[in-house]
Amino acid sequence: MTLERIARLQLELKPDQVFYVTNLINVRYLTGFTGSNAALLVSDSTAVLATDSRYEVQLAQQVPDLVSVIGRNLPELLLGKLSKAEVLVEGAHLSVDSFNHLTENFAYQFTSVTGIVEKLRSVKDNSEIESIKTACEISTQAYLKVIETIRVGQTEKFVRNELERCMRELGADDIAFASIVASGPNSAIPHHEPTDRQIQSGDLLKIDFGAKINGYHADCTRTSAIGKPADWQVELHAAVTSAQQAGRESLRAGIEFREIETVVDQALTLSGYREYFTHGLGHGVGLAIHEDPFFGRVEDAKIAPNTVITIEPGAYLKDQGGVRVEDTIVVHSKGYENLTNLPYELLEL
Amino acid sequence: MTLERIARLQLELKPDQVFYVTNLINVRYLTGFTGSNAALLVSDSTAVLATDSRYEVQLAQQVPDLVSVIGRNLPELLLGKLSKAEVLVEGAHLSVDSFNHLTENFAYQFTSVTGIVEKLRSVKDNSEIESIKTACEISTQAYLKVIETIRVGQTEKFVRNELERCMRELGADDIAFASIVASGPNSAIPHHEPTDRQIQSGDLLKIDFGAKINGYHADCTRTSAIGKPADWQVELHAAVTSAQQAGRESLRAGIEFREIETVVDQALTLSGYREYFTHGLGHGVGLAIHEDPFFGRVEDAKIAPNTVITIEPGAYLKDQGGVRVEDTIVVHSKGYENLTNLPYELLEL
Repeated sequence: MTLERIARLQLELKPDQVFYVTNLINVRYLTGFTGSNAALLVSDSTAVLATDSRYEVQLAQQVPDLVSVIGRNLPELLLGKLSKAEVLVEGAHLSVDSFNHLTENFAYQFTSVTGIVEKLRSVKDNSEIESIKTACEISTQAYLKVIETIRVGQTEKFVRNELERCMRELGADDIAFASIVASGPNSAIPHHEPTDRQIQSGDLLKIDFGAKINGYHADCTRTSAIGKPADWQVELHAAVTSAQQAGRESLRAGIEFREIETVVDQALTLSGYREYFTHGLGHGVGLAIHEDPFFGRVEDAKIAPNTVITIEPGAYLKDQGGVRVEDTIVVHSKGYENLTNLPYELLEL
Repeated sequence: MTLERIARLQLELKPDQVFYVTNLINVRYLTGFTGSNAALLVSDSTAVLATDSRYEVQLAQQVPDLVSVIGRNLPELLLGKLSKAEVLVEGAHLSVDSFNHLTENFAYQFTSVTGIVEKLRSVKDNSEIESIKTACEISTQAYLKVIETIRVGQTEKFVRNELERCMRELGADDIAFASIVASGPNSAIPHHEPTDRQIQSGDLLKIDFGAKINGYHADCTRTSAIGKPADWQVELHAAVTSAQQAGRESLRAGIEFREIETVVDQALTLSGYREYFTHGLGHGVGLAIHEDPFFGRVEDAKIAPNTVITIEPGAYLKDQGGVRVEDTIVVHSKGYENLTNLPYELLEL
């Protein structure tokens, strides 16, 4: 599997080029190696992975079929004696200091490139989709279980802990990111960090969370009500939910990202909440929780088949409360599959 | 507190310089703002923080006393109309792409600098030490509680989950990093990711873990035995423990990092395990789990008072097992305070 990914990267290289891969997520994607210190050198016909001695055993287990070297100075190990003239480096990842270190120590032409492996990563193969699907199933099961146990007086942190414990018990390797549990006025904060605030009757409760399996992430948000919701909460929730539905149901391979954004914007404009939607509509999900493609960053671009992406509109009324509804979705040539299959109605907890 | 930190940074700046801070940990250190998107511009007499609209409420709560701007294009918001000639940027953090974006869009002189805020961060004030101390107390309490419940047949992942749940129940805001729970031959892997391997009688069990409080980390490792340890396990454990003790007890402000390394190396050479110690001796701990100063990277440098640092020698016998002993320690002008106060004997679980 992974050597096939290196082969796809090699198709992008000219005979006199090598690609020095330092973004660890890209190294993992291409090789399967998960150590915290590694670099990969790929030419049009070879590939060598370098790491340090802490990872000797792990290297043999995870990457038995790839040439590898072990030592402290990874640039020297991989670039020490090249015959190639041009070294491509990852401009979005490599720091200015690391780039200067390379140009000062090696007499090659270094060219900064961006998005080559990220573009390969943005289209998922079956094994990747299976991992994301499993992560999403664990996430949704955990959510349904935990919302049954939510009571007035529990803190946001308590609910966060319960949800994360439950995802782990259901088999998650880890959580996908720091879960957002935002109650009452805190739900108006799009990226809220859970606090000791106690959940109260009359709150909106926004939970944005996910599990991780084999390095692959799930990303999901639902907003529910504590007790009987007020009219403004029902209206706000309905507006966001129907905008999310409109966006979701427009998904298919070949459609422009911009078209989906327009559909969602129109729905929110119609309901009067457009101005309260203050962030991007969604992003790719895979080995990173946020990865290519991103809504809003890709002019004219169309969604490729087997893209896994979130659709997550929200509306946030300052000091009152906010609603976000988010799914992780695989886009197929005809339509889509929603991997975070949770209820859309405003649940009363 | 935080404005005082900006004042310390301003002392480093010339009148015609501004410092464009993009490393989010440095932004948090200087301002207290914890959002996931921000930049800070500091001149010798002013400071402005920029973030996007998702963080409007959080900004007002966390940073009420600092000038701030909100928008999508942070470089434009902060650098759009400067009268200063030279902009310092963080070369260890800023990517090549971001640096090129700056030089292409703004007609200032951009100078890459490294380690300025990191150096300020490496010496802790009392509030920082208190947070690390609390994180360490939660960590050690959780460890002592969880090792009581460890049984043959539990998996590494199960123990990891129990430990992390316990740290959260004891009040951790979060875990400090992905806990290492490594049993039997897996303990020979310095950075092992917990698996479904079941703990067996005769295993060494190495646990490297920590809690997080107010953004500050704890970092601690102990290795214990499952059942009665074999002679080689007792010997290996004694060798690493006494090397760690020798290093720890040499700590005081003013001593060279290199001297501590020499003490530990000599102890391991004497016991015959030097060649099995394959990683660095330790690192600073604070808002990052690994931060300045690092053992082995600082020629001739001496340890400053109020540095918080780990001492963590290990020895790893491939396919058999490994031992690491690690403490998080505050260095004082006379001696040190060990914040991870756990037993050093080889516990039989």
